[in-house]
Amino acid sequence: MALIAGRMSRLGTENAFSLGDDIRRCVERGMDVIRFNLGAPDFRSPPRLNRVAAAALDAGRSGYCDPAGVLPFRRAIADHVARTRGVEADPERVVVTPGAKPPIGYTLQTYVDEGDAVVYPTPGFPIYESWIRFVGAAPVPLALSADRNFAFTADDLAPLVGERTKLIILCSPSNPTGGVLSRDDLAGIAELVRERCRPDVRVYSDEIYEHILFDGLEHESIVSHPGMPERTVLASGLSKGFAMTGWRLGWAVLPTREEAAVFKRININVMSCVPPFLQEAGAAAYEDRAVAAEVRRMAAAFERRRDRIVPALSAIPGVRCRTPKGAFYVFPDVSGLCERLGVYEACESFHKGARSRTTPAGMLQMFLLYRYGVATMDRASFGRIGAEGQDFLRLSIANGMEDIRRGVARIAEAAEDAEGFAEFVASEDGEALFG
Amino acid sequence: MALIAGRMSRLGTENAFSLGDDIRRCVERGMDVIRFNLGAPDFRSPPRLNRVAAAALDAGRSGYCDPAGVLPFRRAIADHVARTRGVEADPERVVVTPGAKPPIGYTLQTYVDEGDAVVYPTPGFPIYESWIRFVGAAPVPLALSADRNFAFTADDLAPLVGERTKLIILCSPSNPTGGVLSRDDLAGIAELVRERCRPDVRVYSDEIYEHILFDGLEHESIVSHPGMPERTVLASGLSKGFAMTGWRLGWAVLPTREEAAVFKRININVMSCVPPFLQEAGAAAYEDRAVAAEVRRMAAAFERRRDRIVPALSAIPGVRCRTPKGAFYVFPDVSGLCERLGVYEACESFHKGARSRTTPAGMLQMFLLYRYGVATMDRASFGRIGAEGQDFLRLSIANGMEDIRRGVARIAEAAEDAEGFAEFVASEDGEALFG
Repeated sequence: MALIAGRMSRLGTENAFSLGDDIRRCVERGMDVIRFNLGAPDFRSPPRLNRVAAAALDAGRSGYCDPAGVLPFRRAIADHVARTRGVEADPERVVVTPGAKPPIGYTLQTYVDEGDAVVYPTPGFPIYESWIRFVGAAPVPLALSADRNFAFTADDLAPLVGERTKLIILCSPSNPTGGVLSRDDLAGIAELVRERCRPDVRVYSDEIYEHILFDGLEHESIVSHPGMPERTVLASGLSKGFAMTGWRLGWAVLPTREEAAVFKRININVMSCVPPFLQEAGAAAYEDRAVAAEVRRMAAAFERRRDRIVPALSAIPGVRCRTPKGAFYVFPDVSGLCERLGVYEACESFHKGARSRTTPAGMLQMFLLYRYGVATMDRASFGRIGAEGQDFLRLSIANGMEDIRRGVARIAEAAEDAEGFAEFVASEDGEALFG
Repeated sequence: MALIAGRMSRLGTENAFSLGDDIRRCVERGMDVIRFNLGAPDFRSPPRLNRVAAAALDAGRSGYCDPAGVLPFRRAIADHVARTRGVEADPERVVVTPGAKPPIGYTLQTYVDEGDAVVYPTPGFPIYESWIRFVGAAPVPLALSADRNFAFTADDLAPLVGERTKLIILCSPSNPTGGVLSRDDLAGIAELVRERCRPDVRVYSDEIYEHILFDGLEHESIVSHPGMPERTVLASGLSKGFAMTGWRLGWAVLPTREEAAVFKRININVMSCVPPFLQEAGAAAYEDRAVAAEVRRMAAAFERRRDRIVPALSAIPGVRCRTPKGAFYVFPDVSGLCERLGVYEACESFHKGARSRTTPAGMLQMFLLYRYGVATMDRASFGRIGAEGQDFLRLSIANGMEDIRRGVARIAEAAEDAEGFAEFVASEDGEALFG
C-alpha cells in the first residue's frame, strides 16, 4: 500500500491557482506584478446583490436547503435558460452547484465509464482534461486553431467521434481563446451528434462566458438546436458575467429529472448544498433589470479593453494576436517572440538535461513574471495533450486600462531583452524553475 | 454502454435530505409536521458573524481566493485546534472546504485504493458508507451498541483492524447516537493504531459536534494522543456548534503539508474555493468571545432539551432511550413500540412480496410522519450494513421545547394506535411507500 491512492496521480490542477505562489514570491521581492493571469473580473459583485444576500442572512435563512438548490433560484435559472436559448426549461432539471466548475466533474463521474472516449477542446479549461483522466476515460482532444479564430465546425469534430465516444465537451465563448461558435457551427455540430451518436451520448456545454460577447453578437447555445436539450448538460453560472467568482454560484440544466437527481445526489455526497442566502441573490441576479444593465456595462468595458490590447500586443515584434469575440482573454501566438529571445535554444538545452517538462511558452511566461512583473498563463496550462509546439500565452483583460497599458509596455520592453532572458535562464530563478 | 456510469450505482445518499419529499407531501395535505428529522440547529447564525460577512462583501472581497482557504481563517482554525487539542497546528496543513462533509469524500479518494479496508462506526453518518463503497473499498462496520451508550474501546476495534486496513473513521460526539468517546477510550484507540497499523494508515476524526457536549464534559480528540497528529485527518467546522449549517464552512487539518496540498488540489478540481467573505466570518467565529458565549448558550439549550425529551420518551411504552452526552440527537430503541403496534408482522408480510426493503423502524418512521405529523430518521438511514434487526429512531432536539412536548405527545398517542397502524399499512400511502 502507498500513502496516496493511485487514482490521485491522474488528477490534474489549474495552474491559474498554483501560479499564485510564483506571484507571491515576486511581490515579496518588492515587485509590482500586473496580473494578466487572473480568470476573474476586476469588478466587484453588484452591490444590489450583496444587499440581497445580507438581508437573507439577517432574516435567518442560514440553514441547510434543498441540495438541488432553492426553488426560486432554480426557477430563475430555468426562466433565464428558456428566454435566452428558446427552449423549455424545467426547474426540476436544474441543479445548483458551488460555481460552474462542479458540473464538469459531476458529468464525467455520472456518464463516463473507464475506457469511454471524451472529446474536448484544446486549448481549453484544464479541469476538463483533469477529470477525463481521473475517471479513466480516453481523452480525445479537438485542436482549436488560431487560423480559424479558435472556432470549429462539424467537419473538425466528425473524425473524432466514434463508437466509444460517450461525451463531447463544448465551451463557447471559450476560455482561454475567446473563440465563439456561431449558430451555424452549432447547427452542424448538433446535426452530427444526432446522426452519429447514440441517444445516451451526452454533450457538455460550458457556457459560463455567455454574458461576455463583443461586436454585437448574441449568445448561441447548442441546446437551441433540435434534439439537443435531451442530450445536453448545459452549465453556467454567475461567476464571470456578474463578477461574482468568489460567490460560487453555478448551475447545470440536465436532460431529464432522473439525471438531475443524480447530480443532486452528488451534491448530497460532496457538500450538501449551496448557501441559501447566496442563492437568493442568485435569483435576483437573473430577475433584476438594474443588474442586467450592470452586466452589459461590464461586457462593454471588456470590449473596450480588447480593442486596446489587441493592436498594442500585435505591434510587439514576434507577437500575433487574434481578436476574440467573447470572454475576457486574448490568446496571442508568441512563437516569434520566443524566437527573438532565444527561448527555443534555452528550452532545448534544459530538455537535454531530461529533467524539465517546461515548454517555450512556459519559459517566456516565467521570464515575463520574474523579470518584468507581468503574470500570464502559458498554453500548456490549458490542456497538456497536444500542447507541444504551440507557443501561446493567455492574457486576461479583467484589468483596468492603465494596467493593460503598463503591462503591454513591459512585454514590449521584454521583447527587446534577449540578454536579460539569457541571464534569467542562467540565474538561480531559472535553475529553480526549469532545472 | 449505459447512460449512467457504473460507479454511480455505488454512491449512496443521506435520507435526511430525501425525507424532505415525504414531509412536503404531508404539509401539502395540511398537516403540521414536527421536524425531529433535521440535523441542523433551530438557532440562527450569530448576527455578529452575519455582519462580518456582509461587510467583507461590501468591501469587495467577492472574488476567487486561495483554494486552500484564506490565510486568516486557516490561522484561526490552527489556533483553535492548538488551543482545544493541545497540539501544534500549522495553517499550511489546514484546508477549508464547503462544510465539514467534503473532507469525507476527499479522505476516501486520497488515501483509499480499491480493495483497501475501511473501519467506520455504525450507526453513523451515512456519507461514510457511501464514499467507502464509491471508491470500491471494503466496508468494515464497527457496531455501536446502546448497552455501551454508543461508545467503544480499543478492544472493540482490535478484531476489525488487519493488514488491509487503510482508514479508520471516528466520530465523537456521534451522529446519530450522541455517544461520546472518553479520553481513556481515545488513548486506547491511539495505542492500538500506533501498535497495529502501518504509518501510512490514516484515522479520519469527524469532530463536527465538538462544541455540543453535556454534563460538563470537555471535547476530547484523538489528535491529543501521541503519534496521532501525524496519522489523523481531523475534520470539523462551524455548521453545528455555531448554528451555521447553510454557510458551508468546514475544514480539515492534515498530517502533512503534502497531504494538505492534495486536498487543495481536490478543491481546485471540484469547486475552486469557499467564498472568501464567508471565511472572514469563519475567522471571527473562532476569535470573538461574544460568539463563544453564544455557542455555549446554544449547547446549554440542547442540554435542557435533552433533559426534557429523554424521560418523556422513556415514559412511552415500548420506547427505551439512552441519555446522550453530546450532539443534538436522541436515538431511542423502538423495538418494543414496533412490537406493540404490529410493525414486525406488517413488515414480514411486505417482505414476502419480495419487493420491499423496508425495515420495521422505517415503517414506524413513516407511520409517525404520515399519520401523526412527526418526522424522524430510522436506523437504516445511518448505514445499511448491519442495520438488520436494529430498531431505532433518531430524533433531533434542534427544536424548541414546545415542539418537543407536542412531538413526544404525538408519539405517545401513536403508541396506542395499533389499529391506525394497520389502517396506514393497508392504505394507499402504505402501498406507495412499502409495496
